[in-house]
Amino acid sequence: MTVHTSAARVNIALADCSYDILIAPGLLDAPASFDAVPLGASALIVTNATVGPLYAERLAAALASRHARVLRLELPDGEQFKTWETLNKIFDALLSQQADRGTVLYALGGGVVGDMTGFAAACYMRGVPFVQVPTTLLAQVDSSVGGKTGINHPLGKNMIGAFYQPLTVACDLATLKTLPPRQLSAGLAEVIKYGPIADMAFFGWIEQHIDALRACDAHALAHAVRRSCEIKAAVVGQDEREAGLRAILNFGHTFGHAIEAGLGYGAWLHGEAVAAGMVLAAELSRELGLASASLVERLRDLLIRAGLPVQAPVLSAQDNAGRYLELMRVDKKARQGEIRFVLVDDAGHATVHAAPGAAVRAVIERCRAQ
Amino acid sequence: MTVHTSAARVNIALADCSYDILIAPGLLDAPASFDAVPLGASALIVTNATVGPLYAERLAAALASRHARVLRLELPDGEQFKTWETLNKIFDALLSQQADRGTVLYALGGGVVGDMTGFAAACYMRGVPFVQVPTTLLAQVDSSVGGKTGINHPLGKNMIGAFYQPLTVACDLATLKTLPPRQLSAGLAEVIKYGPIADMAFFGWIEQHIDALRACDAHALAHAVRRSCEIKAAVVGQDEREAGLRAILNFGHTFGHAIEAGLGYGAWLHGEAVAAGMVLAAELSRELGLASASLVERLRDLLIRAGLPVQAPVLSAQDNAGRYLELMRVDKKARQGEIRFVLVDDAGHATVHAAPGAAVRAVIERCRAQ
Repeated sequence: MTVHTSAARVNIALADCSYDILIAPGLLDAPASFDAVPLGASALIVTNATVGPLYAERLAAALASRHARVLRLELPDGEQFKTWETLNKIFDALLSQQADRGTVLYALGGGVVGDMTGFAAACYMRGVPFVQVPTTLLAQVDSSVGGKTGINHPLGKNMIGAFYQPLTVACDLATLKTLPPRQLSAGLAEVIKYGPIADMAFFGWIEQHIDALRACDAHALAHAVRRSCEIKAAVVGQDEREAGLRAILNFGHTFGHAIEAGLGYGAWLHGEAVAAGMVLAAELSRELGLASASLVERLRDLLIRAGLPVQAPVLSAQDNAGRYLELMRVDKKARQGEIRFVLVDDAGHATVHAAPGAAVRAVIERCRAQ
Repeated sequence: MTVHTSAARVNIALADCSYDILIAPGLLDAPASFDAVPLGASALIVTNATVGPLYAERLAAALASRHARVLRLELPDGEQFKTWETLNKIFDALLSQQADRGTVLYALGGGVVGDMTGFAAACYMRGVPFVQVPTTLLAQVDSSVGGKTGINHPLGKNMIGAFYQPLTVACDLATLKTLPPRQLSAGLAEVIKYGPIADMAFFGWIEQHIDALRACDAHALAHAVRRSCEIKAAVVGQDEREAGLRAILNFGHTFGHAIEAGLGYGAWLHGEAVAAGMVLAAELSRELGLASASLVERLRDLLIRAGLPVQAPVLSAQDNAGRYLELMRVDKKARQGEIRFVLVDDAGHATVHAAPGAAVRAVIERCRAQ
């Protein structure tokens, strides 16, 4: 397939396995996109009520030559459905269809579908193979890459899950054309993230191309997705299980998860919460003398140009900073009650630190939405 | 600790990790039993309403020198509670106590507690360390060893889970003294299992010592637990993820899982269902010319002497064999709708086979409870 051979390919090399992220328009319709998947077994496409009607039929057609039986399941759309109840719908579908250990799960959709389908694959019969077919920018540049899967708990985001790697990731750039602008912006938050934590030259490139990216320019998106995946692959390849380095990918996420949990899952998109969270984390980096005011301003300006929020929403009228701190204490990076933050410097390096409560409180108040 | 150094030790050697099963009376009270566990972090003892009052306080005391904070959680007792709802109580306890990634989970109880605690440890924050402290014979000789964790689904047993290895397994033989006779018999089913699948000399030893085992003779139990763990360790060491060989440990379990699901979880103990299931699987082995009538009779006689059921309960008044087949089709060994059985020969070897439906039906009817 020409589509396949011309696709950009980013390899994720891990101790136990290695797989490719394919990046090109049209991958969804090309059977060759799924050459890494064993022939013959049955398949279940898991998607949501928004993406399914657009693409599930086309993906099923592309898989018809590979699987004897292609089933489909539509989940409700939204972060508020990233729960055990929704996950259980995947198990119900698999068991009622007597799906066996050879069944391949395909996650067709954004981060919520990908995280839940991956976790279902990790747990069903203690593990069946799965494939990521991300259709949002956020999923293509972040959540579908690297094997983090899971669901939310009322007391914390992504608290229940598994590290479980897909057989392959097929990023069909053509699907981004149907993405609502708000979703595109949310994805740009995770693209922008790679600048301060790893590559300030890429950050400069994004500053120059932000308008093209928001206009869905194919060349700009192709470069943004590829460079994001390269950075993520390099980090995950060094630290699959987040023993250390990988935590830098959570820049903005400590504050961001508090925003998502505090407002109620689904009120803000994940990328929106991460955008405001990055501003808070950058301000904290400045407060602690790691980053300059100019870096914080560049980041804030770029996020605004990307259509993203840069202020901390009020989570409590009584003790707003206290509420943030309470929500952040269940963050997975926390150690014995001490919250740890991903902080950045001007050179594009990130490190993970504890921070004095007073500094954190000051930053939350300074960035507070009016 | 003398208790610790005199304990029998069986090593499980896997590709990624290696750990010891310790076997001795008194391990529960000996801090040295948990030398493999890192110091300092907090701990959660997960137990049930039956075992907790007997042993949780003593285990907590033994852990006080190792963990700054030792929390406890009691789950309801019984296979019918091996569900997501009960599992979620573990997550609720961990999150409400702001337990971090360094928290160690201790499973104190039988197979249900061990399977659920292990699965919770596999999923909480995508993996925290855990320790098995099995207090039933069944858990000591089988379920706590080898890293299979999970929960039941209304449509099938252990359908949702993970392969996740403990840091160590401490089998305190003294806890078997408080085991009700019915539970002891259920555990003997899994001990007896190791004979036909791996070691007919051990089977002969059990035939000679079955009365001592039922009387809780300390020397007999110590040998039975140790030899069972040795056999399981050898099998799991060759095939952690059940790509092939490991499936032989499920001798009797294909029929047994159908019995458990068909009667409703908790009606029969797991070991009881496995006992009747082994008779059915042995009869099927004979039907297919693999085993002799005399092997089937020896197995049936020994199970009866162990106080276990040897007949297939009626699961449907209309089409009993059909109901068994329907329930067995969701077995994890099934491949594309074809049920696969662990069959044995007279020499103590097991293999996994499909079988003609007519032979399976004949065996179910022949063994049908009157």
